[in-house]
Amino acid sequence: MRTKITIATLILASLAAVPAFAGEPSVGETLINLAYSIDTFYFLMSGALVMWMAAGFSMLEAGLVRGKNTVEILTKNVALYSIACIMYMFVGYNIMYGEGLSSFIPGLSFWLDADNTVDAVLKSGGETYYSSMADFFFQVVFVATAMSIVSGAVAERMKLWSFLIFAVVLTGFIYPVEGYWKWGGGFLDGLGFLDFAGSGVVHLCGASAALAGALLLGARKGKYENGKVKAIPGSNLPLATLGTFILWMGWFGFNGGSELKISNILEANAVSMIFVNTNMAAAGGLVAALLLSQLWFGKADLTMALNGALAGLVAITAEPLTPTAMVATLIGTIGGLLVVASIVFIDKARLDDPVGAISVHGVVGIWGLIAVAFTNPEGSLIAQLTGIGVIFAWVFGSSLVVWSIIKAVMGIRVSEEEELEGVDISECGLEAYPEFSKK
Amino acid sequence: MRTKITIATLILASLAAVPAFAGEPSVGETLINLAYSIDTFYFLMSGALVMWMAAGFSMLEAGLVRGKNTVEILTKNVALYSIACIMYMFVGYNIMYGEGLSSFIPGLSFWLDADNTVDAVLKSGGETYYSSMADFFFQVVFVATAMSIVSGAVAERMKLWSFLIFAVVLTGFIYPVEGYWKWGGGFLDGLGFLDFAGSGVVHLCGASAALAGALLLGARKGKYENGKVKAIPGSNLPLATLGTFILWMGWFGFNGGSELKISNILEANAVSMIFVNTNMAAAGGLVAALLLSQLWFGKADLTMALNGALAGLVAITAEPLTPTAMVATLIGTIGGLLVVASIVFIDKARLDDPVGAISVHGVVGIWGLIAVAFTNPEGSLIAQLTGIGVIFAWVFGSSLVVWSIIKAVMGIRVSEEEELEGVDISECGLEAYPEFSKK
Amino acid sequence: MRTKITIATLILASLAAVPAFAGEPSVGETLINLAYSIDTFYFLMSGALVMWMAAGFSMLEAGLVRGKNTVEILTKNVALYSIACIMYMFVGYNIMYGEGLSSFIPGLSFWLDADNTVDAVLKSGGETYYSSMADFFFQVVFVATAMSIVSGAVAERMKLWSFLIFAVVLTGFIYPVEGYWKWGGGFLDGLGFLDFAGSGVVHLCGASAALAGALLLGARKGKYENGKVKAIPGSNLPLATLGTFILWMGWFGFNGGSELKISNILEANAVSMIFVNTNMAAAGGLVAALLLSQLWFGKADLTMALNGALAGLVAITAEPLTPTAMVATLIGTIGGLLVVASIVFIDKARLDDPVGAISVHGVVGIWGLIAVAFTNPEGSLIAQLTGIGVIFAWVFGSSLVVWSIIKAVMGIRVSEEEELEGVDISECGLEAYPEFSKK
Repeated sequence: MRTKITIATLILASLAAVPAFAGEPSVGETLINLAYSIDTFYFLMSGALVMWMAAGFSMLEAGLVRGKNTVEILTKNVALYSIACIMYMFVGYNIMYGEGLSSFIPGLSFWLDADNTVDAVLKSGGETYYSSMADFFFQVVFVATAMSIVSGAVAERMKLWSFLIFAVVLTGFIYPVEGYWKWGGGFLDGLGFLDFAGSGVVHLCGASAALAGALLLGARKGKYENGKVKAIPGSNLPLATLGTFILWMGWFGFNGGSELKISNILEANAVSMIFVNTNMAAAGGLVAALLLSQLWFGKADLTMALNGALAGLVAITAEPLTPTAMVATLIGTIGGLLVVASIVFIDKARLDDPVGAISVHGVVGIWGLIAVAFTNPEGSLIAQLTGIGVIFAWVFGSSLVVWSIIKAVMGIRVSEEEELEGVDISECGLEAYPEFSKK
Repeated sequence: MRTKITIATLILASLAAVPAFAGEPSVGETLINLAYSIDTFYFLMSGALVMWMAAGFSMLEAGLVRGKNTVEILTKNVALYSIACIMYMFVGYNIMYGEGLSSFIPGLSFWLDADNTVDAVLKSGGETYYSSMADFFFQVVFVATAMSIVSGAVAERMKLWSFLIFAVVLTGFIYPVEGYWKWGGGFLDGLGFLDFAGSGVVHLCGASAALAGALLLGARKGKYENGKVKAIPGSNLPLATLGTFILWMGWFGFNGGSELKISNILEANAVSMIFVNTNMAAAGGLVAALLLSQLWFGKADLTMALNGALAGLVAITAEPLTPTAMVATLIGTIGGLLVVASIVFIDKARLDDPVGAISVHGVVGIWGLIAVAFTNPEGSLIAQLTGIGVIFAWVFGSSLVVWSIIKAVMGIRVSEEEELEGVDISECGLEAYPEFSKK
Repeated sequence: MRTKITIATLILASLAAVPAFAGEPSVGETLINLAYSIDTFYFLMSGALVMWMAAGFSMLEAGLVRGKNTVEILTKNVALYSIACIMYMFVGYNIMYGEGLSSFIPGLSFWLDADNTVDAVLKSGGETYYSSMADFFFQVVFVATAMSIVSGAVAERMKLWSFLIFAVVLTGFIYPVEGYWKWGGGFLDGLGFLDFAGSGVVHLCGASAALAGALLLGARKGKYENGKVKAIPGSNLPLATLGTFILWMGWFGFNGGSELKISNILEANAVSMIFVNTNMAAAGGLVAALLLSQLWFGKADLTMALNGALAGLVAITAEPLTPTAMVATLIGTIGGLLVVASIVFIDKARLDDPVGAISVHGVVGIWGLIAVAFTNPEGSLIAQLTGIGVIFAWVFGSSLVVWSIIKAVMGIRVSEEEELEGVDISECGLEAYPEFSKK
């Protein structure tokens, strides 16, 4: 979190200049009120946009799996969002942003504190410049995003409740701990590791947990047989496209809100730059992936284009403020090229990731973090690589442990018959499209 | 509507402190301008989010009916939204918020007034603190929400134009009258009945009108035959899930905007609390309904989970400000449990409600209103029960009369052949999915 | 662009009244900061809503074409949005809003400038009142909208890459040039041509380019055979309905943001009026088209209703501020009637426009521009007709040239076999719904 030019510096003069009448707020206090209100409203709108990303992941993943596994992935997505909210309220927020025991070990306390009092805000001279409840709202939709990444990679074969139990642990503990290390002021922050809106803290985190799960699960039946890689096309591409647009829109809140302040000229300019760069990176990623797929495969592959846009978004997330619009487009373009190559490579490596989540959020998340070293003068390659290593090691390692325990206790994979029939019937007792006959 | 700490109190000092130059606004006037602008913008954004709920209801209902009745329910939804806007502009807004003849009998006048003049706002010292046109925009999307609830319960068997004529009456008269009783300052408000954003005024209203319609209509053919309840699954569950996410997102405007002010620290904190509580109640409702359906039916029923989230949202709507996030989660959780039980019970009682609208908005709306007595110190159980009784009696009674008249004049139910074939062809001449063959 | 009552006039007194302390901002400077922040935030939220319209066009068009051409139109839509962003950043924004060589000939320069400095804003006394980067973001989503209109009219038969090359030229050159003539301060603006948010600059532009393309392309195979007009129904009407709702919502940003300022009472009222009028025009258009289709065709045609809503939106876009809500409803109503008649007429004239884009955006765009002469006291019929003529002649003419060159060089139409099979397989190598069997 960058140091902010607060309203405090702006209104010091006014506080001094205009005498406060007995019991009535001065002009300076009114200015603090207005700025607090603008910044809080900006937080809430940003949070609503990020919450909307939960719908984006749901539609994207539902569109990219087969019809027989659609209800289950929808159920996972709505449930994981809800679990993320509950766990983060219960304990995650306090772990991430509370008083830590050291820069490595976060503290532990329960429930949310009350919001700032008016008195406390006024006494802070505007240093406390937005509602802490609005901050919680904004943060909680981030943890849900991290968890949403996982569901795609383990789609079509994982048990619903095993997945949801993992969601409890990731959103309540694994994510908040590494979040504390960076955004809570822990040792990664101290090392100079830069991650503006979470290419690492959110996206690499989600991808690392997904990788651990996908490795333990194994590939879907029929995906890699007789030495061949079988393409398993998504069942509803308009839905996947809608999901991508939702994510693209929501990302304006994700990155734009991460500036954390908008109530003066400098900050308003910063948020504007972030909106432009976020948009340009996605555009660059989409065009690059579309062109590459045309040149490489001879077809303008829509799913690659969508993943290209998402790759652009993930890549710019680590630093959407310092690049020019042109450089942001370039960062997204490289992300778009990378994601196509990565999806092909991962498939060749027989790691089955039905929606390409590990490529989009993991591989490109790493690219975004590395790019910071070249676009932000305060960035350092060593700090970035350290951050990447620490986040990956922690999330992958702890996830592997948690997935393994769940596997040992209740299993993580559905039976072969259930997988063949589709998990919708076995897990949820419903079909996504009960009336449409199959080819 | 709570008494607001207006900018007036905040800027009194400044008005006095800084001399106004001839013909030029003073600092105090500028502060009033800025606060007016923030509150108006907040209203407009909230209204846009509530308008978006119309899309949510459309998608939810389209996903939960059969493919042969999908076009018709989409047509109903887009048309009812439009009719609601026209009728509310024509007469409804004036009935609800105009000068009433008494606390029981609202007045009647036509068209909208012009907006506040700048002079009037400045002279009010900021008591008039937002655009009355923005207020109309926010209010008109509420009346559309109330009417949207009805379409789901009467789906798959009601004549299109009969439904739309009812929409004219509900949005122009029935809703505004009870709205006047509470939010327009009528007798329900005087009694101490509390309903922050409309668990009663909007949701119970919609459910009561729906109940009257569903009773007169009777069940769908084949739903209750040979003493058995036949499940009629929805045709497109990704669409229903999308609709739920849209509603969830829109609810931040629905509840968050109902605070009616955001331009100072206290109000910004209040809106933030409302966002958090709205989100937590939905999360609690979803998890509760999912768990209950797993325990009760042995399956993680997605449609129950979606209804659980909506139940949480309806439940918290009566009072999203005073509970803590933890209590809000609990209120939503109880809503989620209730809705599952209610849907099962209503089905057993052979009342055919294809999307569960009466359970979600009626039964859980009542729960939300009752909960106010326990979470808001100013609430009283008797006042809440009175409000519930009055709203239900008025809306159910008047709707029954209107539905009956429409039934007598032009009929409300399609013919048996049309119902069998699907109302899409008979009413709209189109198929929702003309290319997909049926099982 | 209308002259704005800037914060400058509002804070002149305060700048004078409160002495600035050495190196610290005065109350007046703080007020400029807050207003700048509000207006910029309003721009960014409006821009995000307009960006969302790209999803609306995608879903609308995907729902209205056949299943075998769905992936291709989705690909076109995501790619054209991205190309629009890149081209407009590269050169279009500078052409449109840069220093022109004359009122006819715009200038040419590359890349975006840096944003306003804090000093420049303060020195302007608030005349420079929002981030120029936020302005770019808002403008870039407009150019994408113009291009989105084209894809629908040429659907189901045009080569993907030919289309995308045209997108490069339209978004980089054709649109910015006519945009310069009006919004960049060129000769159309000087003539008194009024076009508030782009019924002409955006919608008529898109429709004119679409018309040129559709004429060169010819009709889809089987559309007009044996002297008969064959209806080719859309494959997914819930998707088309969703697209319309998205567009409706996004239009609040499109029109509401075009007021360009919200930070004082007068402007906040104006934006509110625009929201109300935009909504009412859409509602009027929808109801009118639905009623007309019932009376004319004997069926409540959902696709006509959706086009009616869009027609209402297009019609009010030329002047959403000066009409009363009642007049706005009427303007939309006429738009809704016109669009039904136009779609029927254009089909009879054997001009194949699969989604009705030319009727909605062209015919009704012209109606909206003419209506300005009667609703805005500053409007003149001659100026409006001149503007219509100039925009049409320029965009249609230049588009015809560009389409012809593309046709000569690489062709614009897919082969007959590809069209029969569907362009999804031939262009994109994917099916939209691979699992659903066809009737």
